Amino acid sequence: MQFHIDGFHPGDPRFSDPQDRVVPPPVKRPLPEQVDVLIVGCGPAGLNLAAQLSKFADIKVAIVDLKDDRLLVGQADGIACRTVEMFQAYGLADQIIQEAYQVNEAAFWKPDSEKPNQIVRSSKVQDVADDLSEMPHLIINQARVHDQFLDVMRQGPGKIEPYYQRKLLSLEVNPVADYPVTAKIDRLVNFSQYSQVIETVQAKYVVGCDGARSSVRNAIGKELVGDALNQAWGVMDVLLNTDFPDIRLKSLIHSNNEGNMLIIPREGGYMVRLYIELDKLKENERVARDQMTPEVLIAAANRIMQPYTLDVKEVAWWSVYEIGQRITTAFDDSEDGRPARVFLVGDACHTHSPKAGQGLNTSVMDTWNLGWKLAHVLTGRAGEDILQTYSDERREYGQALIDFDREFSRMFSAKPKTAENPDGVDPAEFQRYFQLFGEYTAGVSIQYRPSIMVSDGKHQELATGLTVGKRFHSAPVVRQGDAKPMQLGHCHTADGAYRVYAFAGNAEPMSNQCGVEALCEFLANDASSPLKKYTPADADPDSVIDIRAVFQQHHQSVETNTLHPVLRPEKGKYGLRDYEKVFCVDNRPESSGGGMNIYDMRGINKESGCLVVVRPDQYVADVLPLDDYEGLASFFDKVLIDA
Amino acid sequence: MQFHIDGFHPGDPRFSDPQDRVVPPPVKRPLPEQVDVLIVGCGPAGLNLAAQLSKFADIKVAIVDLKDDRLLVGQADGIACRTVEMFQAYGLADQIIQEAYQVNEAAFWKPDSEKPNQIVRSSKVQDVADDLSEMPHLIINQARVHDQFLDVMRQGPGKIEPYYQRKLLSLEVNPVADYPVTAKIDRLVNFSQYSQVIETVQAKYVVGCDGARSSVRNAIGKELVGDALNQAWGVMDVLLNTDFPDIRLKSLIHSNNEGNMLIIPREGGYMVRLYIELDKLKENERVARDQMTPEVLIAAANRIMQPYTLDVKEVAWWSVYEIGQRITTAFDDSEDGRPARVFLVGDACHTHSPKAGQGLNTSVMDTWNLGWKLAHVLTGRAGEDILQTYSDERREYGQALIDFDREFSRMFSAKPKTAENPDGVDPAEFQRYFQLFGEYTAGVSIQYRPSIMVSDGKHQELATGLTVGKRFHSAPVVRQGDAKPMQLGHCHTADGAYRVYAFAGNAEPMSNQCGVEALCEFLANDASSPLKKYTPADADPDSVIDIRAVFQQHHQSVETNTLHPVLRPEKGKYGLRDYEKVFCVDNRPESSGGGMNIYDMRGINKESGCLVVVRPDQYVADVLPLDDYEGLASFFDKVLIDA
Repeated sequence: MQFHIDGFHPGDPRFSDPQDRVVPPPVKRPLPEQVDVLIVGCGPAGLNLAAQLSKFADIKVAIVDLKDDRLLVGQADGIACRTVEMFQAYGLADQIIQEAYQVNEAAFWKPDSEKPNQIVRSSKVQDVADDLSEMPHLIINQARVHDQFLDVMRQGPGKIEPYYQRKLLSLEVNPVADYPVTAKIDRLVNFSQYSQVIETVQAKYVVGCDGARSSVRNAIGKELVGDALNQAWGVMDVLLNTDFPDIRLKSLIHSNNEGNMLIIPREGGYMVRLYIELDKLKENERVARDQMTPEVLIAAANRIMQPYTLDVKEVAWWSVYEIGQRITTAFDDSEDGRPARVFLVGDACHTHSPKAGQGLNTSVMDTWNLGWKLAHVLTGRAGEDILQTYSDERREYGQALIDFDREFSRMFSAKPKTAENPDGVDPAEFQRYFQLFGEYTAGVSIQYRPSIMVSDGKHQELATGLTVGKRFHSAPVVRQGDAKPMQLGHCHTADGAYRVYAFAGNAEPMSNQCGVEALCEFLANDASSPLKKYTPADADPDSVIDIRAVFQQHHQSVETNTLHPVLRPEKGKYGLRDYEKVFCVDNRPESSGGGMNIYDMRGINKESGCLVVVRPDQYVADVLPLDDYEGLASFFDKVLIDA
Repeated sequence: MQFHIDGFHPGDPRFSDPQDRVVPPPVKRPLPEQVDVLIVGCGPAGLNLAAQLSKFADIKVAIVDLKDDRLLVGQADGIACRTVEMFQAYGLADQIIQEAYQVNEAAFWKPDSEKPNQIVRSSKVQDVADDLSEMPHLIINQARVHDQFLDVMRQGPGKIEPYYQRKLLSLEVNPVADYPVTAKIDRLVNFSQYSQVIETVQAKYVVGCDGARSSVRNAIGKELVGDALNQAWGVMDVLLNTDFPDIRLKSLIHSNNEGNMLIIPREGGYMVRLYIELDKLKENERVARDQMTPEVLIAAANRIMQPYTLDVKEVAWWSVYEIGQRITTAFDDSEDGRPARVFLVGDACHTHSPKAGQGLNTSVMDTWNLGWKLAHVLTGRAGEDILQTYSDERREYGQALIDFDREFSRMFSAKPKTAENPDGVDPAEFQRYFQLFGEYTAGVSIQYRPSIMVSDGKHQELATGLTVGKRFHSAPVVRQGDAKPMQLGHCHTADGAYRVYAFAGNAEPMSNQCGVEALCEFLANDASSPLKKYTPADADPDSVIDIRAVFQQHHQSVETNTLHPVLRPEKGKYGLRDYEKVFCVDNRPESSGGGMNIYDMRGINKESGCLVVVRPDQYVADVLPLDDYEGLASFFDKVLIDA
């Protein structure tokens, strides 16, 4: 998909006329007086939280932002594989993939040993390792990600739309009230020139998604601590011509004396983002941040990439940032055993450089972790104790992020190792670091520690590739009911349900020896069955815990009518049977696109099979023997409460 | 993607609230007085034509329809692979694929030889043969296809929206006028109860997309001829529960004495379409068409599928049709060498049964054939003589369609061959016929005959799998500029450009021996170069003829800066370089998803390479030796006129 050729225009690129890409801002409605969740900030973290909560008709949400409309330009652009997996759960991955630039390779450039003032390519490497994720690594304007979240919010049962031009003035927490948090908010669109309009919103929970200068964080007395502002970089989105050959590849350039640069090709085929190191600017070019110009940045870029040159035709967006690695003193306002009422997420918790593309991705993963937990508490599925896991899980990861970023930024900003600079960083070493951290930057290395919702992995050997605490690593299967080849992980929609995968052993499906049949009997009939205990009487049988089975046999050999009713649940107002719960190994010949065996790919024990319990945010909660009903029941007894 | 579980609701299923899925009808504007093209009918044929023409800012189009708003329910649902390939050219395949049911297998059922009144499965077969198309066979509500076309129309440079509630009253053709066709149209939304509002539209061309009872066809004195109405079938979209095991597979059921039935699973996981043969209704059930009820159809279905039963919970839509195989006496109004001013497409040309899913697919292929030709004439790229090929090419295919349908319907309606009915059709024979015609029903077997825009295939041996006259059969490649693995055929967007693929031989890319380099030199500099002759001075260099190259070497070994400028054209107001013209064989290891060699898959001569010329509608116009510049020039001399 090509666009931006005649200049950058924000909005949906499918509209030929740029004027049509921008819709007018929504009507300015007054804020509701009481909500379940008040979200402060319409960045990716806030919108993702609203999108998740919009899946629940009964949760009342208000999301506010200082800006007067949706974002249109600039800011983040890198979308890690893991984030695209999450997009898939919302049904918006396809459109993003169609529009985005896909990062398949990275090029590394270093000073030419013969002519050190010129750069030469040291190598091209594959960007995403094989089978790291079924999803690609993408680059797309953050604003288009916002647009997709806004669609999900509007389309969901909760029908959420942002309240723009709202400034948080204060938060007060009264822990024992029904609505413990009272927020005062300035309505910036005032009706009279003589008065300020202050709206008061009472909320059960408030989530601060309002960035590094978070008002919510200040209101609960937390602060960012860590390294001071230590590196200045310029960033710009440009339309250009160049003789630099890798302009459509992600390119990491280390020059000898002119500083370093990162080139990120952008969506539409023509736009490019440049990250340009500014600390190496010559003495007389060191200008204050508010006096920096695009011309200075372009001149710096041209010096760095000699012998190549850039001919910039249009600057779509640019900025200069100086940033250190900082983390908040706490991720929520809980204290002395009192549960949290106010949470911090995203940049309100952790700030770091944007070059490794971790900002947006970490922020949305913060609210992806928090959103379903809030929903479970607010819908009465779970007790408030599960909320503590948000801080426990994400704080560690926030710390890991700033540690990584400190090292990555140091290596990126270091001078390359040369004869005259023996203490510099060897470009080959930098490249090894880049590849070593490929899993990390793709977002798939996160492993949450054991807690009430992550087991200690006692039975991990039954599925060595589905690591307890890590995200469920998808693999291809064929759906039994309609013979559709698909990714098993794409069953995990963003609906707040736990998923239990019963991977069958090698017995005849649904025979007396089949562990899946016995499991279904337990689930359907036993008093300790979590399916019976935790599913409300008027809810669909798969709405709280969604049971799915995978068999090793060819999909044509598994007969629908032999399947246990638990695997053909009756749903909705008519009690219609759902035929999409059973899968088989993709036993089709390779010539038909088959031949990928999920048992082999994920190290699943073929003889005994196993149970894999997956959280609503797609993280593996437990791996259990197929007949460990007690283990299964006791897991859910910790995280759900009786329906 | 699951939906319809609580009942069928039309519109975009991503909206949780069914009320939000239906937008209000557009404002009723008056018709323009003069247009380039007047399209009568907002079915798939008309909307596809409007979508194609909307890609041209300078073509003025009006599309009118009797209905008061867009279609919401019923009618066609089968989308052949070839049609999805066309959707890809518009950028709407991804959304349709995400929403649709995917036909992967078909189940055949026949009378049980032991208990002839009961059916048994005879087999399950793969629905789409390996490498028939890179696109799946889909089932989705025709209305959602309309929605996508309406988006394309609105988003394109031409910004086309339908004029609803308009009834064509008359057409008059004055061949020598600037606007030869005058249409009188009744505006059905009248402002006064005392008067009819008649609008007059003058058009250069009128296209009748107004179905079997076409007013346009009548106005130009053509008629449908062929078999009388000979078979009655009922069709219904239902939400149901059943013990029939293949309810989520396309199932073709032949019963012994109760007639035959076709089951088509529908999008969303729950809805099913049933085609039920009515000629076998018992004497006392034979009711007039206007007295038929869903209950009668359901009872018939239950008899056919014994021992299984259907429990229908909701009928979303139903209809009864009696239809023969008929074709129009002419596809346009041309006569005695006078070029056509009025064209007929879709059901206005050919009617047949819907069971093989060919109606919508043939109709959109009619306008896919006609649309770019009209655009070429109206934008001055081509002379009117190319319009004659519409009738020549589509008439033959219309005839083939009704011949196929006659035989398919006969076999489908025949009694199965049994001991007591030795003259019946052997179910195995029917299944063989079904598989034999898989290419035909997928829409990929069409081969247009030699004409000014299809060569005689003299050099076919240079690319045996890219048959002259057939659609360009896509295969995987890696794009050189950004290392993106993709389908080569997805370069063919619906922009009206011819595409020329230069498949390189085995010489070093861009060396003196490289035929692609020499070709580019010819195209850039020779006076007879079609690129120079036919591209207007102010147009992008790839807007009329789009040159692309494919190399056999690994994509990392082809250096961007060695590529000829023809393969890095400068475009748009800034003259930005387009880096998406060069591809390489997918030489990545199989573990990375590579290993599919387009030269092997499509029988391309590896030593000499070849040129493949592809029409704007994706049909292969010619295969030529890589150095046959004269052949290339003379092809374009026949179909384009000097810029």
